[in-house]
Amino acid sequence: MSHSTTTTSTTAARVFSSDNAAGASPEIVEAVVRAASGQASPYGSDDVTAGVRRRLSEIFERDVDVLIVSTGSAANALSLAALTPPWGSVLCHRDSHINNDECGAPEFYTAGAKLVALGGDDAKIDAAELRAAVRHKAGDVHSVEPSVVSVTQATETGAVYTVEEIRALGSLTQEAGLRLHMDGARFAGAVAALGATPAELTWRAGVDLLSFGATKNGTMTAEAIVVFDRSLTAELSFRAKRAGQLASKMRFHAAQLDAYLSDDLWLRNATHANAMAARLQDGLKAVPGVDLLGAAEANILFCRLPRQVTEGLLSDGYAFYHDRWEPGVVRFVASFATAPQDIDDLLDAVRRHSA
Amino acid sequence: MSHSTTTTSTTAARVFSSDNAAGASPEIVEAVVRAASGQASPYGSDDVTAGVRRRLSEIFERDVDVLIVSTGSAANALSLAALTPPWGSVLCHRDSHINNDECGAPEFYTAGAKLVALGGDDAKIDAAELRAAVRHKAGDVHSVEPSVVSVTQATETGAVYTVEEIRALGSLTQEAGLRLHMDGARFAGAVAALGATPAELTWRAGVDLLSFGATKNGTMTAEAIVVFDRSLTAELSFRAKRAGQLASKMRFHAAQLDAYLSDDLWLRNATHANAMAARLQDGLKAVPGVDLLGAAEANILFCRLPRQVTEGLLSDGYAFYHDRWEPGVVRFVASFATAPQDIDDLLDAVRRHSA
Amino acid sequence: MSHSTTTTSTTAARVFSSDNAAGASPEIVEAVVRAASGQASPYGSDDVTAGVRRRLSEIFERDVDVLIVSTGSAANALSLAALTPPWGSVLCHRDSHINNDECGAPEFYTAGAKLVALGGDDAKIDAAELRAAVRHKAGDVHSVEPSVVSVTQATETGAVYTVEEIRALGSLTQEAGLRLHMDGARFAGAVAALGATPAELTWRAGVDLLSFGATKNGTMTAEAIVVFDRSLTAELSFRAKRAGQLASKMRFHAAQLDAYLSDDLWLRNATHANAMAARLQDGLKAVPGVDLLGAAEANILFCRLPRQVTEGLLSDGYAFYHDRWEPGVVRFVASFATAPQDIDDLLDAVRRHSA
Amino acid sequence: MSHSTTTTSTTAARVFSSDNAAGASPEIVEAVVRAASGQASPYGSDDVTAGVRRRLSEIFERDVDVLIVSTGSAANALSLAALTPPWGSVLCHRDSHINNDECGAPEFYTAGAKLVALGGDDAKIDAAELRAAVRHKAGDVHSVEPSVVSVTQATETGAVYTVEEIRALGSLTQEAGLRLHMDGARFAGAVAALGATPAELTWRAGVDLLSFGATKNGTMTAEAIVVFDRSLTAELSFRAKRAGQLASKMRFHAAQLDAYLSDDLWLRNATHANAMAARLQDGLKAVPGVDLLGAAEANILFCRLPRQVTEGLLSDGYAFYHDRWEPGVVRFVASFATAPQDIDDLLDAVRRHSA
Repeated sequence: MSHSTTTTSTTAARVFSSDNAAGASPEIVEAVVRAASGQASPYGSDDVTAGVRRRLSEIFERDVDVLIVSTGSAANALSLAALTPPWGSVLCHRDSHINNDECGAPEFYTAGAKLVALGGDDAKIDAAELRAAVRHKAGDVHSVEPSVVSVTQATETGAVYTVEEIRALGSLTQEAGLRLHMDGARFAGAVAALGATPAELTWRAGVDLLSFGATKNGTMTAEAIVVFDRSLTAELSFRAKRAGQLASKMRFHAAQLDAYLSDDLWLRNATHANAMAARLQDGLKAVPGVDLLGAAEANILFCRLPRQVTEGLLSDGYAFYHDRWEPGVVRFVASFATAPQDIDDLLDAVRRHSA
Repeated sequence: MSHSTTTTSTTAARVFSSDNAAGASPEIVEAVVRAASGQASPYGSDDVTAGVRRRLSEIFERDVDVLIVSTGSAANALSLAALTPPWGSVLCHRDSHINNDECGAPEFYTAGAKLVALGGDDAKIDAAELRAAVRHKAGDVHSVEPSVVSVTQATETGAVYTVEEIRALGSLTQEAGLRLHMDGARFAGAVAALGATPAELTWRAGVDLLSFGATKNGTMTAEAIVVFDRSLTAELSFRAKRAGQLASKMRFHAAQLDAYLSDDLWLRNATHANAMAARLQDGLKAVPGVDLLGAAEANILFCRLPRQVTEGLLSDGYAFYHDRWEPGVVRFVASFATAPQDIDDLLDAVRRHSA
Repeated sequence: MSHSTTTTSTTAARVFSSDNAAGASPEIVEAVVRAASGQASPYGSDDVTAGVRRRLSEIFERDVDVLIVSTGSAANALSLAALTPPWGSVLCHRDSHINNDECGAPEFYTAGAKLVALGGDDAKIDAAELRAAVRHKAGDVHSVEPSVVSVTQATETGAVYTVEEIRALGSLTQEAGLRLHMDGARFAGAVAALGATPAELTWRAGVDLLSFGATKNGTMTAEAIVVFDRSLTAELSFRAKRAGQLASKMRFHAAQLDAYLSDDLWLRNATHANAMAARLQDGLKAVPGVDLLGAAEANILFCRLPRQVTEGLLSDGYAFYHDRWEPGVVRFVASFATAPQDIDDLLDAVRRHSA
Repeated sequence: MSHSTTTTSTTAARVFSSDNAAGASPEIVEAVVRAASGQASPYGSDDVTAGVRRRLSEIFERDVDVLIVSTGSAANALSLAALTPPWGSVLCHRDSHINNDECGAPEFYTAGAKLVALGGDDAKIDAAELRAAVRHKAGDVHSVEPSVVSVTQATETGAVYTVEEIRALGSLTQEAGLRLHMDGARFAGAVAALGATPAELTWRAGVDLLSFGATKNGTMTAEAIVVFDRSLTAELSFRAKRAGQLASKMRFHAAQLDAYLSDDLWLRNATHANAMAARLQDGLKAVPGVDLLGAAEANILFCRLPRQVTEGLLSDGYAFYHDRWEPGVVRFVASFATAPQDIDDLLDAVRRHSA
């Protein structure tokens, strides 16, 4: 891996390596400030936490349970642990975050389940591969048992599964008797991109548990597991405590999510981030020598840059991943905090170094 | 267990069930607000996180490494996992938080090590029991291997180990070839109570890893593991990531700790909390029918209240644990946010119901 | 621990430290010899393994499933793993083998469940303690969840639970919604001692899974899990394979058990071992200075010997545990292979050293 | 998977599905019979077990430690657990037994390490792929840490690594700071095929731990871990006990290995099995329509058979895997117990159905 992201906080927003370089939305900061005074019940028995569950139930158009945790890896790993036995397998895309970027958190939380990596374009699981995988050696004690499918929405390359695609994978999964998890680290971006309802994209398509991402899109330290199959809630609650994921002053995480879910902030932020990536895409199209790779459906953009452009940008202080996937390939990630001017400055720099 | 703590956020601070009912110190809130703007490197590679390490190195008078995590259970369980193999045992007090109140987090993180519960007054490990336990079936493959001792400072009953006591346990531990962990969920309170230096109470006495508590004493969601044996840092870093404890926007946890450690806020908060418990103790002494149980050395006070007093306080809206340890026994916990008036109001109420 | 058992194979049978010092019954040796020729299906799909299941179904008067494993620790740990979630607790006697002598195998197989040690005379769980323990913090995510009770029959001190005692513990367990495991490492000895039916002592009293011991009583390397709750069989099968406990040439374990269960060999062996312990008991009663401790209901006898007797026996080449529980306390274990002359020789030696 | 192996014990040896369908060598049966009388120290402290260690030290031309376990999966999983931390990865071939056929035993024993599957012809790890994998994201806490390489000798397809090949992989492994495990389920077959010394094929090439297979080649229920890096012995001993792999009457496993290692029985058996596979290969070469796939270097032979031949053999009562890897592909496995006549009968049948 090329660790090309030694960033520092600067006034100009030149970090495009990840949406986690951004700070927090002002509304969320204010909510945390409000939460800081007075006494509250600990461990999630407070009113703010109850409010988050209400808001998510409205957004998903059904009663859901919610566990608030501190990281996306914890949300994913806890969810998977509730959906597979230790001798089970998790079917996922080979480029998925759970497979590559969580240091084996799913293996840890599940007590040793196996991640089975599948292929597919744009980091979306190929349906034909999944069809074979859900039945592979099922019921054979010599092999791990296919138990849960995990899809990432939006994907690690910035693509989004359509409602029909999720539904198709969900049907395959259900028919084979497996469970369906969605890693929604960028779920808001997918909803914003598709214009579909959160319900259509999840439980109506068969999703049992959703890692509802928030930190990349405006909160500080709060993520949620949205529980559609509420028979799993008790188990998840024990597992979360046991994992050190039940915050004593839960209101501070909950306040972030409460503000995030109010007045459509989560969707507004995501819509903005997507628009910034589209703005970058539009600008890059016109630059000779730049090849766009795939469509930037959410807030992530892959392209191929001439060497001198990459080097020029780096010397300007820009931060982004490059040469990690393939030589010459660059990834830019926009966020809720990216200003149009940030994009325009970046485009100027690209043009300047291309010339 | 009597779950007698259905609390709600009220203007009057009537929750004495735990120090985790308090909010956050204003300085800490301000630090979080400041951290919210601009871009920063993720996963703890930011400047604020580096600053926390520098401050803790100063406070402990040596270079330490630091892992910032989101809960005290995570800090404890991660520390123990780095200090014992799965076939090891953790020697701890039978009343310790790790033994009773973390839903088996140590067993989870250590991959199944065994907690061996020892006795001792005031939730302090009895030295004679420890002396036997560190050698119990050592080297015998039929039994778990004594591997790490964990002490809580201040203890779960509000007592504090003196420097000499810690040193004695540390010597015993080291001579037997075991490691020493300190659960410092209320470490600040112990330092404040003893007037000893943080160094004397920890690494100079043989402590390898310290769970440096902060949330109960003024932060929102941030705890630290202070690593004295820095050969453990790499392992801890992998374990923390794998446990979902490496925050992407780490600066938001770090900012809390940075403010907490600045201008002695951590000690000022703890000194205040201790003083509030002492104020309550002084007041209760004079109330006929109230028996104080042990000395309130830190911010926790145990006493025996007449039944009608307990019931009267509950009907006034006070929240606290009662009848959990023994019938008639009540626990009050003060915090950095407890006002003298809160104590005086409580004392008035006790007197009124005693009359 | 005093490791006083450096034994060697000798013509005179002077090893009374454990029933595992004995060899194997001739009938079992013959069965293994027979199994060695010809081809057979692997992994337990052979006819001999099927026969073991039929025999155990007859013996227990109902259809049971059976898993054949290679050690008693594996039988116990696998059983417990199927009966408790990782966040659960196993309620057992503080002197139980699973608690003291399996190096944390239950913790390993269960992915970190906690053993909660209870008291009671003769290593039998005290009913009143169990009554409190099954409800202790049940449903509270801060604490491990009471999930399974494990009783040892015969107990580690050679006592046996009566049918009524097992039934009482079974009722307590079931009413609280927990599961019941029986460590029957010396189950045959208990059946022989009580004259009760295997069914009465197990599933009719609420036992879900039984570790059906055989190695101490005449087999070489084979133990069985008898599955009364057959909904657990699939899970146990995956767990056994995953634990390296599914033998490829299973017929060699199965043949041992088949012979063990034929013509009441298991009961004949146990009856003999019990009789040998009783013969020893009778003889020791008459020796001045020897105190019998508890009744030898099965094949284990505890007594207090004068120092010079213990030392004299050791110098004669006798092997047994002494000074392990308390100074002066000695344990003798008889087996199916103990000859009356072995006991008489031992008694002669005791008398000689007492004189 | 096509479960085409419903075999039964028959007089004619028509099971070619696996070498585990065979019984045991007469010498081994006799050793078990001898072990059955008299008393012996339990848990591997007996003389026979000590003898196994001496014999293996001679065979491997250096002092080794030995753990005797009951299955090959246990030998592999224990070895891997001693060589990788839970956050580590095991680099292995994608067709390896540990990756496909042990139901996640390595993941269980290692507490959740990740198996990283590499390619290469004949189920041998490709050196170029390994070169990349040993450094992949090394030291990056976001990813599992490359920790151990596991090679199978002979491979799952019956190929053997040459001394040079093992040495090359060993160098790569050592230079990158990883450890090397060898799954030697068919190690004897490889030694017999290569004519190399056991030392050259293992520790001299960098192997740290060897799963020394025996059950497929003549023993009943005994496998050994040969420990070249003896600093791992204590850890392995605790892990084995904890896994339920420390047999109380260890002499019965040890006696099998003792006989197996005496008078070169292990090599004689393997030489015979290899010769039987070669005899089959020679015969099949001459049959029109039969395609041999790869060379049968050890006792496993892959070929492509016309459909009517496969069906004819099955209807004759022959058992073997077919259509499991690819349509039309068949695997035959010979063993120490395969008689030349068994091969000739099989060849006759193939010819008959081909006609």
